[in-house]
Amino acid sequence: MDNTGAALLPEGAKARRVYLSLRDQITGGALPAGASLPGEQKLAESFSVSRVTVRRALDALASTGLIDRKAGSGTTVREGAVSGAPVAMNFTTLMPQLVEMGHTTQARLLSFTYEHAPSFVGNALGLSRDDTVQTAIRVRSADDTPFSYLTTYVPERIARNYSEDDLANHPLFSLLERSGVAIDQAHQSVSASLAGPEVAQALEVAVGTALLSLKRVVLDVDGNGVEYLSGLYRPDMFRLEMPLTRVGQGAARHWEPAIGKDGDSPT
Amino acid sequence: MDNTGAALLPEGAKARRVYLSLRDQITGGALPAGASLPGEQKLAESFSVSRVTVRRALDALASTGLIDRKAGSGTTVREGAVSGAPVAMNFTTLMPQLVEMGHTTQARLLSFTYEHAPSFVGNALGLSRDDTVQTAIRVRSADDTPFSYLTTYVPERIARNYSEDDLANHPLFSLLERSGVAIDQAHQSVSASLAGPEVAQALEVAVGTALLSLKRVVLDVDGNGVEYLSGLYRPDMFRLEMPLTRVGQGAARHWEPAIGKDGDSPT
Repeated sequence: MDNTGAALLPEGAKARRVYLSLRDQITGGALPAGASLPGEQKLAESFSVSRVTVRRALDALASTGLIDRKAGSGTTVREGAVSGAPVAMNFTTLMPQLVEMGHTTQARLLSFTYEHAPSFVGNALGLSRDDTVQTAIRVRSADDTPFSYLTTYVPERIARNYSEDDLANHPLFSLLERSGVAIDQAHQSVSASLAGPEVAQALEVAVGTALLSLKRVVLDVDGNGVEYLSGLYRPDMFRLEMPLTRVGQGAARHWEPAIGKDGDSPT
Repeated sequence: MDNTGAALLPEGAKARRVYLSLRDQITGGALPAGASLPGEQKLAESFSVSRVTVRRALDALASTGLIDRKAGSGTTVREGAVSGAPVAMNFTTLMPQLVEMGHTTQARLLSFTYEHAPSFVGNALGLSRDDTVQTAIRVRSADDTPFSYLTTYVPERIARNYSEDDLANHPLFSLLERSGVAIDQAHQSVSASLAGPEVAQALEVAVGTALLSLKRVVLDVDGNGVEYLSGLYRPDMFRLEMPLTRVGQGAARHWEPAIGKDGDSPT
């Protein structure tokens, strides 16, 4: 869906930038179903582009079914245009969760190599300069639509316990624990990033699309690094859900993650 | 810092897109300090642009201090170019946390109005069509650099208990609890979004920069919605940290958030 509109607009075209920005606001909920978009003149001023450019961006939004344009009543976000991200991350497994029944996910292995650890991986996992890591790039899809681009680094001594085939067919955590690794703690850091050319192609989005990015460092009980994950996620396909509960009394009152229900939302 | 390089490149220029993508990879850690960038020809092919365009993007990266260009040895990410996001979110307070000592944050109130709840807010908070909400837009800065653009919606009956001045100077949670609200649970959903013109100006970034986006719905003990937050965060200034611990035995082994240490990272 997302690629269709962008494909109508050449790379580097101003209309493409306006299209991506408005599409993001619609799929991100800032412009919800039924909301009116500002008029063409207002949009043109706001983006410092011509009205012709605004019209081309709106044409692309209309052709992808995100907006309705009616003479007289202006432009509105189409009801049902955004179905919400179908895949969420489950907090107790750190694996993608199928929120709506009937979804299936598939992983595709794009690359699988053994090489010296890049310095940022070596530093995070506590490896020495000569240590080798298995580097794998996988794209995960839900119902044939790609939603995540995952690069994982695992020290060779652990990674030799499972095969390329295993990795394409099993969650990495289960392969690590099957390999005798006593996983103890992880640290995740969440940010945002733009899709570069290779990632954009793999995730079937336009170059310059905003992606959710996640870095995860996993340590075993002895404090040795056993996995470094760099994940990029399509925001229209994937969301990170965090249900929280307010606990404690008085000055000690604080938030705690509400877990144990497969990450179900309390709302 | 981020604006400087983009300011050298006109809106809509292909070089700007290449610049933003590479800058994101550097500040996001995909291209860490010391890493070599691909050669100009490789970058040109990868982005489907000319080498002249690639050179303009690299000039902008060099002028903002993100890369070093040396004849013969190519282009590398500058050591110390990225200091890491200085502000992280504390899980027990859901407030920005000052990771490095000496940082101070300031909030600036951009707008403060009472109006009918937009439908996506009304639906999330369980309001009826005629209910009025206080809508406030605040920009929060650390050491005079803006890092978050926060839009909050609070039902009028609660919001009338505090003033515009209170909101500019106190965390909203403390104002809600001071107003007698028994906060019980929250649900946060994290995604990514592109900066549109207004947000870009407020956060002092280029239009089209990738931002971390967060939606939060807060409910009281009776299940009534008391706050809807839509937050946009600069990824170079803000990160969402999630320390996790692996607990349980056998098939019941799972992840739990590791909290209680002010969100300190275990790594």
